[in-house]
Amino acid sequence: MAQKGNLLSVREDVRVLDATLRDGGLVNNFMFTDEFVKDLYEANVKAGVDYMEFGYKASKDLFDESKFGKWKFSKDDDIRAIVGDNDTDLKLTVMADVGRCDFKRDIIDKKDSPIDMIRVATYIHQMPGAIELIDYCKNKGYEVTCNIMAISKVQESDVKQALEMVAQTGLDAIYIVDSYGSLIPEQISRITEFYQSVTDKYGVSLGIHAHNNQQLAFANTIEALKDGVSFLDATMNGMGRGAGNCSMELLLGFLKNPKYSFIPVLKFLETQMVKLKSEGVVWGYDIPYMLTGMMNQHPKAAIEAMAEKNTNYREFFTGLLEQD
Amino acid sequence: MAQKGNLLSVREDVRVLDATLRDGGLVNNFMFTDEFVKDLYEANVKAGVDYMEFGYKASKDLFDESKFGKWKFSKDDDIRAIVGDNDTDLKLTVMADVGRCDFKRDIIDKKDSPIDMIRVATYIHQMPGAIELIDYCKNKGYEVTCNIMAISKVQESDVKQALEMVAQTGLDAIYIVDSYGSLIPEQISRITEFYQSVTDKYGVSLGIHAHNNQQLAFANTIEALKDGVSFLDATMNGMGRGAGNCSMELLLGFLKNPKYSFIPVLKFLETQMVKLKSEGVVWGYDIPYMLTGMMNQHPKAAIEAMAEKNTNYREFFTGLLEQD
Repeated sequence: MAQKGNLLSVREDVRVLDATLRDGGLVNNFMFTDEFVKDLYEANVKAGVDYMEFGYKASKDLFDESKFGKWKFSKDDDIRAIVGDNDTDLKLTVMADVGRCDFKRDIIDKKDSPIDMIRVATYIHQMPGAIELIDYCKNKGYEVTCNIMAISKVQESDVKQALEMVAQTGLDAIYIVDSYGSLIPEQISRITEFYQSVTDKYGVSLGIHAHNNQQLAFANTIEALKDGVSFLDATMNGMGRGAGNCSMELLLGFLKNPKYSFIPVLKFLETQMVKLKSEGVVWGYDIPYMLTGMMNQHPKAAIEAMAEKNTNYREFFTGLLEQD
Repeated sequence: MAQKGNLLSVREDVRVLDATLRDGGLVNNFMFTDEFVKDLYEANVKAGVDYMEFGYKASKDLFDESKFGKWKFSKDDDIRAIVGDNDTDLKLTVMADVGRCDFKRDIIDKKDSPIDMIRVATYIHQMPGAIELIDYCKNKGYEVTCNIMAISKVQESDVKQALEMVAQTGLDAIYIVDSYGSLIPEQISRITEFYQSVTDKYGVSLGIHAHNNQQLAFANTIEALKDGVSFLDATMNGMGRGAGNCSMELLLGFLKNPKYSFIPVLKFLETQMVKLKSEGVVWGYDIPYMLTGMMNQHPKAAIEAMAEKNTNYREFFTGLLEQD
């Protein structure tokens, strides 16, 4: 497909989104210290990152608040305790899972909230719920994006129909989400072209959220970028569920726009991420994640194998074959 | 550029080369146990890998044998002690560095050696020495390939001239080598096209040897494959200098040719690589390697920083800037 931009110049449509608290929160049950979150906010502001995702807006009726850190729920007051009035260029966002949030209670008018953008996450079988949630958030005044998850398991004709439904809401961006870390750059390129065949009609931007099961999160992200995708998710040191995500240090090291600054990311890595790792928080490429990614399966079994330090890879792989 | 093959079919020209002992040997000074090497040989035979690289043919006059494991020197007798008569489809190879091997003494007639192929490694300023070595090995009856190293620091016009010189020897393949892990898939694609503009004239194949500094070793390898490169280097669990190489498990998980079998690799990982890691042998992506890769510099400083467990990334980065 046609390439957008080149390796030496700036693409003004690019938006970098830091998803460390949200996807990284899936690693440690959102148990981040306030110091970590404040330093992360500061790093993102100084690095010129465009959006910082705080976490989920999960329903307190569905999830026990005593069992998770506060960023599972991302209350407006908790965000404000970190950012004050957020008198910066960094926009703030949270993720709302269709069917797992109480949006009519927890998502208030944008003018009264520190949040700028709501990221609606949905499976393909939940589209009417997704549309309702997108419309609700738009009406409240937020920027809205939509992550259609697990598309590598869905028929293209169904994805196309979902894209039409979502794009017609007039939201800001639709994300290409490689939930299982199963996709390779060549597929990302095709999927981008496929998504654009719908979203271009409605003037809706595209985003990419990649996982690193096959060490392709950064490669898939820059492939999507080359193909015209604008919203790029990354996390500090790639922290995220299982094999993790596209690393912020790699992405900002790559982007040429002088508005992005690399040094605040390095500072955050050396002050906070090194400490987090030394405390035993584990994520990143390993064989079980590679196997679920290769098999286009949910990483749940791999996360369990890693927790049990199970290195019987052949037995694990055979188990996956039987689930296929 | 035009794509060769597709994601569902087999490319008969593909050759997978296991470089674990040679590039991995740079991590542990080639101190592999015989059991490790025998298991690796067995795994490669069973996995259908095309070539196994044993190590370097380094000169015993230049390097002190007491300071390295035996695969720094890869004597024919040591290889034979592992493989016997090698009555298998797996071909054996070693690397000969221009200026660092005593080839007239150590590389004997192919008919008397267990080795099938010599990989000549050269810097661009050593081309006459490389040509002499290539011609010598061809005349002795070996398949011969040539790795032109560190091309990311060399002018394209010089690379073109070197390619012409090497291709005219009529060797079997020339490798695209990303010595510093600084290249991204888009650049690999361009470089492949550039190399082909010379090698296609002479009917010489291309190979790719990637490093993982930017988590792009696998991505760069499959990009090169798509663009028509045939010889693909990989190592078990990506073991290799610094950030390591393209992982064999990822590559064989990706290739569709049923002659390749994935399970023997998993067995080797769980029996040998898990043990090696538990003994404290360290390689793979980390911030210092990412920084030298991004800066297109030799990983030496990063290897030192890692050995010292220096996580002062900003200071390290500033140091690199001053060397640029």
